[in-house]
Amino acid sequence: MKLIYSGKTKDVYQTEEGNMLLKFKDDVTGENGVFDPGANTVGLTMEGAGKAGLKLTTLFFQKLNKKGIPNHYIDSDIEEATMTVIPATQFGEGLEVICRYKAVGSFLRRYGKYATEGQKLDGFVEITLKDDERQDPPINEDALKMLGILTKEEYQVIKNLTVKIAEMVKEELIKREIELYDIKLEFGKDPDGNIILIDEISGGNMRAYKEGQYIPPMELERIVVSS
Amino acid sequence: MKLIYSGKTKDVYQTEEGNMLLKFKDDVTGENGVFDPGANTVGLTMEGAGKAGLKLTTLFFQKLNKKGIPNHYIDSDIEEATMTVIPATQFGEGLEVICRYKAVGSFLRRYGKYATEGQKLDGFVEITLKDDERQDPPINEDALKMLGILTKEEYQVIKNLTVKIAEMVKEELIKREIELYDIKLEFGKDPDGNIILIDEISGGNMRAYKEGQYIPPMELERIVVSS
Repeated sequence: MKLIYSGKTKDVYQTEEGNMLLKFKDDVTGENGVFDPGANTVGLTMEGAGKAGLKLTTLFFQKLNKKGIPNHYIDSDIEEATMTVIPATQFGEGLEVICRYKAVGSFLRRYGKYATEGQKLDGFVEITLKDDERQDPPINEDALKMLGILTKEEYQVIKNLTVKIAEMVKEELIKREIELYDIKLEFGKDPDGNIILIDEISGGNMRAYKEGQYIPPMELERIVVSS
Repeated sequence: MKLIYSGKTKDVYQTEEGNMLLKFKDDVTGENGVFDPGANTVGLTMEGAGKAGLKLTTLFFQKLNKKGIPNHYIDSDIEEATMTVIPATQFGEGLEVICRYKAVGSFLRRYGKYATEGQKLDGFVEITLKDDERQDPPINEDALKMLGILTKEEYQVIKNLTVKIAEMVKEELIKREIELYDIKLEFGKDPDGNIILIDEISGGNMRAYKEGQYIPPMELERIVVSS
């Protein structure tokens, strides 16, 4: 297998069958040793973080498949911490699509004049550019179109899929009395040109709370996978 | 007359007839003594800057009136550096609506991964919150709606008016071989609930270039008003 790309939390290989294989690492994003799903740097390494992320991702992607929501999942090998996926091309040099149910993180840092911490948000969707150097700037529909990153139609498809996927995750968490505050998704195009969910769905790309307490990624995996 | 508000570049008074009177100051926005239309602080004081801004504003608002584009202008007293305007309420605690023809300033700082300096932009409109503390964050249509600042209909009206007004300014400048790079507008609601252009249209809220050279506000006024 050929290593295509070594990311902050995953390595990406090409398989002999022409699929991609994601190797989940034990590195998580954060700053100064503290986990932060919104951070752009690897903050710390936690043994088992990769497998935990993969378990949760596998559980959610299998649920998406049952619902017919298009995504890149083929299968997983938990022991090896790898997931085989459909090859997909990203939009531009990569986008992050965020769905928010509570005002926290960068939303609050930007719009704190109009929102209080923890205020309910109605599944608000926004897109940021993956650009570490420029701190992942938010970008609107018109700019995405003008810069040739997303057509208006693609923007709508991605927004609608994001709401559906976030709603599914939210419902799954509520069953365990966990509240989803926000979630960050990535999309790509499969070889047929269909827009599909790529990357992962784990504690590493969402903020989940129980009784007002933030639940770190590995604990989230334990609660969700074991119940 | 009662002083209602003292802003960075204007003081606002209430007249006895129930209108508002804007007194243009000689203070301009910038940093460390250098003018910058995108800055949030008063950078320097230039004698005559207030009158120059008012002359240009008056010229543009009178042209808007001829075209039937709704705005707050009633009349001006150049000697006193004052403009009488219709009282209007702002949206939320104030918005800035930017129309861009060239990639410069904060657009380039945010989207430099996809745009080069001076690249042509197709009259791209974006909205930022007036919030000095948070560096005037950009905000999209959905967030403006969710936070109760603009309805979807108001967003469309403002976007359409912005394009029309920016286009008019651009045309006026082209006649003097000046190129408009970007312009920052403000809107409010008049007592009947109509959306109207408020504030000013001057060198202080646009970037204008001649033969690739930036033209400072007072020079812009001299070129445009005298020709």
